[in-house]
Amino acid sequence: MFRKETYEDRRKRLKKEIDGGICIFLGNALVGMNYADNEYGFRQDSSFLYFWGLDYPGLAAVLDTDTGDEIIFGNELTIDDIVWTGKIPTLKDNAGLVGVTDTRSMSALKPYVEKALSQGRKVRFLPPYRGDHKVWIQELLGIRPELQSEKADVDFIKAIVGMRNYKTPEEIAAIEEAVDISTLMHLAAYRMARPGVHEAEIAAAMLQEASYRPGTGLAFPTIATVAGHVLHNHGSRHVLKEGDILLVDAGAENSLHYAADLSSSMPVSDKFDERQELIYNLQLRSFEAAVRELRPGNPFRNAHLAAAEAVAEGMIDLGLMRGNAREIAESGAYALVFPCGTGHMMGLDVHDMENLGEQFVGYADGEKKSTQFGFKSLRLARKLEPGFVFTVEPGIYFIPELIDLWKAEGRFKEFINYDKFENWKGFTGLRNELDYLITDDGVRQLGTLKKPMTLEEVYNAKHS
Amino acid sequence: MFRKETYEDRRKRLKKEIDGGICIFLGNALVGMNYADNEYGFRQDSSFLYFWGLDYPGLAAVLDTDTGDEIIFGNELTIDDIVWTGKIPTLKDNAGLVGVTDTRSMSALKPYVEKALSQGRKVRFLPPYRGDHKVWIQELLGIRPELQSEKADVDFIKAIVGMRNYKTPEEIAAIEEAVDISTLMHLAAYRMARPGVHEAEIAAAMLQEASYRPGTGLAFPTIATVAGHVLHNHGSRHVLKEGDILLVDAGAENSLHYAADLSSSMPVSDKFDERQELIYNLQLRSFEAAVRELRPGNPFRNAHLAAAEAVAEGMIDLGLMRGNAREIAESGAYALVFPCGTGHMMGLDVHDMENLGEQFVGYADGEKKSTQFGFKSLRLARKLEPGFVFTVEPGIYFIPELIDLWKAEGRFKEFINYDKFENWKGFTGLRNELDYLITDDGVRQLGTLKKPMTLEEVYNAKHS
Repeated sequence: MFRKETYEDRRKRLKKEIDGGICIFLGNALVGMNYADNEYGFRQDSSFLYFWGLDYPGLAAVLDTDTGDEIIFGNELTIDDIVWTGKIPTLKDNAGLVGVTDTRSMSALKPYVEKALSQGRKVRFLPPYRGDHKVWIQELLGIRPELQSEKADVDFIKAIVGMRNYKTPEEIAAIEEAVDISTLMHLAAYRMARPGVHEAEIAAAMLQEASYRPGTGLAFPTIATVAGHVLHNHGSRHVLKEGDILLVDAGAENSLHYAADLSSSMPVSDKFDERQELIYNLQLRSFEAAVRELRPGNPFRNAHLAAAEAVAEGMIDLGLMRGNAREIAESGAYALVFPCGTGHMMGLDVHDMENLGEQFVGYADGEKKSTQFGFKSLRLARKLEPGFVFTVEPGIYFIPELIDLWKAEGRFKEFINYDKFENWKGFTGLRNELDYLITDDGVRQLGTLKKPMTLEEVYNAKHS
Repeated sequence: MFRKETYEDRRKRLKKEIDGGICIFLGNALVGMNYADNEYGFRQDSSFLYFWGLDYPGLAAVLDTDTGDEIIFGNELTIDDIVWTGKIPTLKDNAGLVGVTDTRSMSALKPYVEKALSQGRKVRFLPPYRGDHKVWIQELLGIRPELQSEKADVDFIKAIVGMRNYKTPEEIAAIEEAVDISTLMHLAAYRMARPGVHEAEIAAAMLQEASYRPGTGLAFPTIATVAGHVLHNHGSRHVLKEGDILLVDAGAENSLHYAADLSSSMPVSDKFDERQELIYNLQLRSFEAAVRELRPGNPFRNAHLAAAEAVAEGMIDLGLMRGNAREIAESGAYALVFPCGTGHMMGLDVHDMENLGEQFVGYADGEKKSTQFGFKSLRLARKLEPGFVFTVEPGIYFIPELIDLWKAEGRFKEFINYDKFENWKGFTGLRNELDYLITDDGVRQLGTLKKPMTLEEVYNAKHS
C-alpha cells in the first residue's frame, strides 16, 4: 500500500473533477469456479485500489462530491469468523491506513444510496464487468443489467481516466518492479525452450518466477505457445519440437497490482532457421521504428504507422508485397501480417482501464477510432504525454485463415502478392514487447534488467 | 472426453429420474479479473460437463424430459472469429462427440424457454453460484437473483446427486490419474520445504507439477502454509523458517476435470521436534481410526467419531483433556482441536456438488445436519455405498482464538484443561489427507503412487 496521503490526494482531486453527486465504487467479490467456495484468486477492482487502497473482498465505497464524505462499507469479522481466520486487522484499522475514518456496515449502503436518490441527487457508477456487480447495481439502483453500461457515468469515467493515465513516480517505481519480475519470468522461458517441453510447463515455471516475492503474481494469463499466429489463443496445449518458434507473452503484477507486459520469441531448436531469422529481424526493425516515434506531443498512431511501414518494407523485400511501403501502411494492407495495434496503456490493469472504455483511455476527446480492420485494433492512438506508460509490441503473423479470406475477397491486391503467401502459411508468428514511459523530454524504457532482443542475445539467453 | 455413449446414457437416465418438464443447464462463462477480457482460467460447470461433456464457454443445454429433446445452444464462430482463433471444430461437430445432434444458436434459448413457460410446463434449473448466471436466469425466467436459490428445482438437484455420487470405473480411473498427479505435486513440496523458501514458491512449484500433462491443472487453489491452524487461509505469505510445520493441501484435476485432494504436513527443519512428532503421530492414529470405519453400510459419521475419539485419547495422554475419550468425541468437546469434518465427497468438484447443496450430497433423505460447532462442519455423514469417492482428513489444530473463546465461555470445562492449552497456542496445526473409494466389499485407497505418511516416510521424502 502507498502511504495514506497518496489515497487522500487522489480522492481530493477526484472530488474536484466531478461536478456534484455521489460516486459509488464497488469492490470486487470472490468468484466461485465450480461452486461458491472454490474461488479464483481474488483480484480487487483497479479503480477501487487506486482511490481506496484496500485489497480484499466484501467492500464498497462512496465519495460524496458535495459534502466531501468518504465512506468505506464492509462487514467487520465476528468472533466466530476470527476462529477460522485468525486475528486480522479490522476494517476500521485498514481504512485508517488509507485516510478514511468513516466505515459502515455493508447493509448501510443501500439505504445510503436510496436516500441520495430520494433527494434527487446524482448517483454515479462505473460500467460493470462482472455478473455479481450487475446484480448489485440492480439491487442498489434498480437498473436492469442490460441497461447498466449505457447508464454508467461518463463524467466519472473521464475523471478517473484523466488521473490514472498519468503515472506518478511512486506508480512508475511499482511498474518497474513488475517489469523486472517479468524479465526474470521471460529469462526462465528462454532457458526452458527445447524440444519435448510442454507449453504449460513453461507457463508454470514463469508463474513460479512471478511468485518468488510475497504478494506478486501474474498480471494476466501467460501465453506460451508455438502457434503465435493464433492471436485469441485460449489454452494452447502443444509439446515444443525442433523448428518451432515459441512466443511468450507474460507479465507480473507487483504487490500493489501494478502490471508489466513483455513478449519474447525464441527458437525451440538452438537457433532459428534462415527464414525465421529474417522475420525476427524484421520485427526488431519494426519495433525500433515505433520506438523512434515515442516522445511527448507525438501521437502514438505515428508509432503504429512507423511500425507498419517497416513491416511493409520487409514484406516488399521478401516479394510478399509490392509498391510503396508508406502507402501499404496507410492503406491498411499491412494488417494482413500485423492485424493488431502497436501498444496499449498499462498501469493497475495490463490494458489500463479497459473496463472504463478504450475510447476514453487511448483516444483524446473528439478522436474517433477507425472501424477498418487493423486500425480498429489500435487500443492507443492519442498524442503522448509525460506520465503515459504503455507497451510497444508490433508483431508479424502469417494467419492462414486471414490470408485465404483476403485473397478470396481480392483485398489490397494492388499491394499483396497472394500467391507468394502460400509458402508462408505454416510460419506461425512472432513478436517482442517492452514497456515505456513518456518523460518530460522523451521516453524511457522501463525496467532495470535486460530482456533479450537481438538474435545474439536470444541465443545466449537459451544457454544462460 | 469420455466416449459419447457415456453422455448419452447419463442423459437417458436423468430423463427417467425426472417427472416431466424441461431441465436447463447453463454452461459457465469466462469471468474478467479486472476487465472483461482479462479472464480467469475457464472452468466449465461440473453438471454441464457430466451430462454434455463440452468444455468451453458460451454454451447452454436443455433436456426435455417429456419429448426427449436434447439441445445444445451456442454460437458458431464467424469467419471473422476464425481469423483470430484459427480453425477449430464447430459446435455441431463437438455436439456430435457427446451424442447430441440438435444444436441451435444461443439467441434461440430464450424463445424456447418462453414457449415452454407459456405452455405451463415446468422449467427446472440448478442453484446459481456465479453472478452472470443470476443475470441469465433472471433474463430467461424473470426470477430475481435473490429468489433463485429457493426456486431452484429440488427434484433436478436430487436426480443429479443420485447419479454423480456413484462413480463408474471410467470416472474412478480419471480420479486416480488426478490422485497420482497430486502425489507428484506433494512430493515436490516435501523436497522444497526448507528455511528461506516462500510459501508461494512451493505453491507455484506444485502448479508446475500439475501442469506437466496437457489439460491438467489444479482442482482448487493450493494451500501451502506454515499457519496450518488458520483454516480459512486466504493467501498466506510467509517465508519458511526452522521449526515451522508446513501444511500443504493441494490437488490436481485430470484433463476431464476429475479432482483429487491430498494434504501433507512436514517439518521445515530436517525433522520435527518432539512435540511436533507427538501430534503428527496422533494425527496418523486418528486417520487410521477413521479408515477402519470405511465400508459399505457404515455411516461416514462413524469414521468421524472414530477419528475424534482417537484425537481425544491423545489429548488425554497429553493432559490437555480429561475423562472418557468416547464421551469427548460424542459431546463435541474434541472440536476444540479438530473443528472440521473428517472428509467430503469428491468427483468433478473437489467438494463434489457443493453448489447443489451439501445436505443432498453428504446426508441421506431425512438425515439432518447438526448445528453444533464441530459436527456442523461434517460435509459427509451418510451411510457409505459402493461407488462413493471421498477424502479422509482429520486434523489437529491449536487455534488461539478458539481456545480463548471456549475458555471464556467455560465450554466443556469438564473435559478440557484450558490452562494446559496456554503452552500450545503457538503450535499451529497439521493434517494428512488421502482419497478413498467404497467398493462392493470394502474400501480402496485411490492412486498408484505412495504419498509419505509415517515420520520415516516424511523424513525420507525431504531428501529424495
